[in-house]
Amino acid sequence: MVAGAGGAPLTGNGYYFHMIVLFTDFGLEGPYIGQVQAVLHRQAPGVPVINLVSDLTPFDIQAAAYLLPAYITGFAPGSIFLCVVDPGVGSDRPAVVVRADERWFVGPNEGLFSILARRSAEIDCWELTTPAGASSSFHGRDVFAPVAAQLARECRYMGKPVSAIRLDQPDWPDELPQVVYVDRFGNLVTGVRASSIDGDAVLVANGHVMNPARTFSSVTRGEAFWYENANGLVEMAVSQDSAARVLGIDRGEIFALQTG
Amino acid sequence: MVAGAGGAPLTGNGYYFHMIVLFTDFGLEGPYIGQVQAVLHRQAPGVPVINLVSDLTPFDIQAAAYLLPAYITGFAPGSIFLCVVDPGVGSDRPAVVVRADERWFVGPNEGLFSILARRSAEIDCWELTTPAGASSSFHGRDVFAPVAAQLARECRYMGKPVSAIRLDQPDWPDELPQVVYVDRFGNLVTGVRASSIDGDAVLVANGHVMNPARTFSSVTRGEAFWYENANGLVEMAVSQDSAARVLGIDRGEIFALQTG
Amino acid sequence: MVAGAGGAPLTGNGYYFHMIVLFTDFGLEGPYIGQVQAVLHRQAPGVPVINLVSDLTPFDIQAAAYLLPAYITGFAPGSIFLCVVDPGVGSDRPAVVVRADERWFVGPNEGLFSILARRSAEIDCWELTTPAGASSSFHGRDVFAPVAAQLARECRYMGKPVSAIRLDQPDWPDELPQVVYVDRFGNLVTGVRASSIDGDAVLVANGHVMNPARTFSSVTRGEAFWYENANGLVEMAVSQDSAARVLGIDRGEIFALQTG
Repeated sequence: MVAGAGGAPLTGNGYYFHMIVLFTDFGLEGPYIGQVQAVLHRQAPGVPVINLVSDLTPFDIQAAAYLLPAYITGFAPGSIFLCVVDPGVGSDRPAVVVRADERWFVGPNEGLFSILARRSAEIDCWELTTPAGASSSFHGRDVFAPVAAQLARECRYMGKPVSAIRLDQPDWPDELPQVVYVDRFGNLVTGVRASSIDGDAVLVANGHVMNPARTFSSVTRGEAFWYENANGLVEMAVSQDSAARVLGIDRGEIFALQTG
Repeated sequence: MVAGAGGAPLTGNGYYFHMIVLFTDFGLEGPYIGQVQAVLHRQAPGVPVINLVSDLTPFDIQAAAYLLPAYITGFAPGSIFLCVVDPGVGSDRPAVVVRADERWFVGPNEGLFSILARRSAEIDCWELTTPAGASSSFHGRDVFAPVAAQLARECRYMGKPVSAIRLDQPDWPDELPQVVYVDRFGNLVTGVRASSIDGDAVLVANGHVMNPARTFSSVTRGEAFWYENANGLVEMAVSQDSAARVLGIDRGEIFALQTG
Repeated sequence: MVAGAGGAPLTGNGYYFHMIVLFTDFGLEGPYIGQVQAVLHRQAPGVPVINLVSDLTPFDIQAAAYLLPAYITGFAPGSIFLCVVDPGVGSDRPAVVVRADERWFVGPNEGLFSILARRSAEIDCWELTTPAGASSSFHGRDVFAPVAAQLARECRYMGKPVSAIRLDQPDWPDELPQVVYVDRFGNLVTGVRASSIDGDAVLVANGHVMNPARTFSSVTRGEAFWYENANGLVEMAVSQDSAARVLGIDRGEIFALQTG
C-alpha cells in the first residue's frame, strides 16, 4: 500500500480515497442498516458508505464466504468492508480485523473470511475485542461500525495480531458447487469461479442440463444456460425468465459439472 | 443545546453535526424514498440522509409511535427526523414540528409523536402549515422534506407555537404489550420497554411460554425466548430460526407478561 | 442551460448542483445497486447518488418508458439519469447518451427513452459505445456508470451525434391505458397523464367503476377511486387499503376511461 496524506491509501487513479462497504444479512427492511450507517456517518464524516449486499441468507456463513472474495474485486485499495453473518453474536465467538491485499475487513470470525484468506496474497489479522457497553445482539452497530469508522480515519489497527490461519475453515472446498445466492431476476449464483473450470463444461442441476453461453442474448428466449457472471462466478440463468422458477432450483442446490 | 457555528448543535464529540433521518412507511420499493432524498440533497447539500426505517406498517400510526422513541436514542442532538405514517394526507389533519430533548421531528400529528412526547424531558412544538402548491398525496416530499432541510440549514423553526399536549393520544398506554414490528429474521419487536418490567418475567403469546435470555447464543437452537433488544424493547426470538414462523405470530399479536 | 463554474449547470436556486439518479430494474436486493454506486462515488466523488427506482419490472421496457418522464419532473437541470431495463444486454443493441431539456440520460436504446423524447422540447442524442473490458451482462456498472460519472465531472459528452428520432418507438401511444407500476400501498400507477383526460372521467378496470377524487381522505374508507398522483399520472387507489388486492388488479391490466 502506498501511503498518502494522513496515511490514506493512494488509489490507482492518483488520489486518496476511502469507502466503507456493508456486506451483511441485516435485511433492507427495518432499522439495522440505517443504524449502522448513522454510526459510520457520525464517526467517519464524509466517507461514502455503500450498502453492497444486505440480503445474505441469515445464519449461512458458508454461502457468504464464497460470495465475498468475488464481490470485492471492483473496490479500490483502502476500502473497508464491514461483514456480518453472525449467528454466534453475544457468545464468546472471536471477531477480527483483516487486511488482505490492501483492503480492510471487520467482522465475526466463524468462517466468513475463510475463502478470502485463501485467495489473498498478503494478509494480516488482528483480534477484535468487544468494548464494554456494546449490546449483546447488535455488534454490527456497536462493535464493527466503530472499528470500520476508525480504520477510515486512521488507516491502521492497533490490536493484538493473530495468525491468518485462524480465518480458515479447512474442511471447506476451494470451489463450492452449490447455489449460494438467488438474485432478483431469478439467476442462480454459485460458489464456483468460472476460471476454475473448463469453459465448455456442462452443468447439471435438478435434472436440467445446461450448456455455457457468453451472454443472455446469445441464447433463445426461455433457454437455460450457465455463464461467467460479471464477478467471475458460474451463474445459471434462463433468457428473459427466472431460472429459479423455470428450473425449480433454490438456494442451497448442489450441482455437477461435466467436462464437455 | 449548546449553540455552535451557524447555530448548529455541538455534539458530545466536540464537532458540529447534522443528520436527517427518515422514519416512514414509504416502502423500499418505488420512487418515494428517492424523491424525498432528492429534495433533501438539493435543499440541504452535504447533510447526510439516513433511511432508518421505511417499512413501517401502512396506516398503523400506533405501532410506529411506540417504535420511534426507542430507535432515536443513538442519534446525536441536532438530528432531524422526518416521520411519516399518514393515512390522513390531503385532509385537514394537523402537522407539526417538534423539538424534543434537542432532536427535531417533522410530520403529521395524528398520534405518531404521542409516546415520544411522554418520554421527553424538554419539548417544544410548532404548527406546520401546508404550503401552496403541495400535492395532496405526497406531503413527505412536498411539505415535510423542505422543512427538514430548512431545519438542517437554520437550526430553528419560525412557526406558531402550540402546546405539546396536542401530540398526545391520552388513551394509549405507556407500554404496549403487542407485536409492533417483525424484522427480517422473524424476530418479534414489541411496544414494551424491557426497563419497565421484571427481568425474570415470563412472556406468554399465542399459547407459547417464553423465558428471558440475555443473548441468542445462551439458549438452545430452536428455543423461543424473550430478551431486551439493542434498542431497549422486549423482543421475542427463536435461536437461529424465525420466531414469527415457529410461533405462528404476526404483527399485532397481543401478549401477556407474568412476573416470574 | 446556463453554464456555471467548470461548465456545471446553474440551478434556479442560484448555485451549481449535480445529482446522479438511478432508474433501474436492478432490484433492492443483491449487489447490483451497490456496485453501481461504488463506481459513481469513486469516479464522481461528492456527487449525490439517488436511488430513485430500482424495482422496475424486469424486461418491461414499455412500462418504464411511461414512468420515466413523469418521475424526472422534480429534478434540477444538470441531473444525470442512469436508466436500465436491458433484456438485450450483451447483444449489439444500441446505447445512448441523451440531453433532454437540460437533463442527461444514459442507457440502452430499445425504447426506454421513447416517451421522454416525445415530451421534450430540446433534445440531443449521442451514440454510446461499449468500452473494451466491459462485462457482457452488467453494463449498468461497466458502461453506463462510468459515463454518468464523466457527465457529472465534465457536463458534456464527446460522442457521435445521432438523430433523436432513433429514440422513439412509433407504435407506442402517447398515453398508455395500462397499469405500469403497483406501489407498496397497492396503489395502481398508470401510463396516462391526468392532464390528458377529462377531470370528471370515469375509469373502468376489471369490472370496477371508479370516480375521480382529489385526495385519499375525501372518500369513504374502502372506496375505490382514481386521482392524479403526485407526479401527474392517473392512479387507482382504495382509501386505507390496497387497490391491487381489493380490485384484483395487477401490473399490466388494461383499463378504459369514459367521459363523465
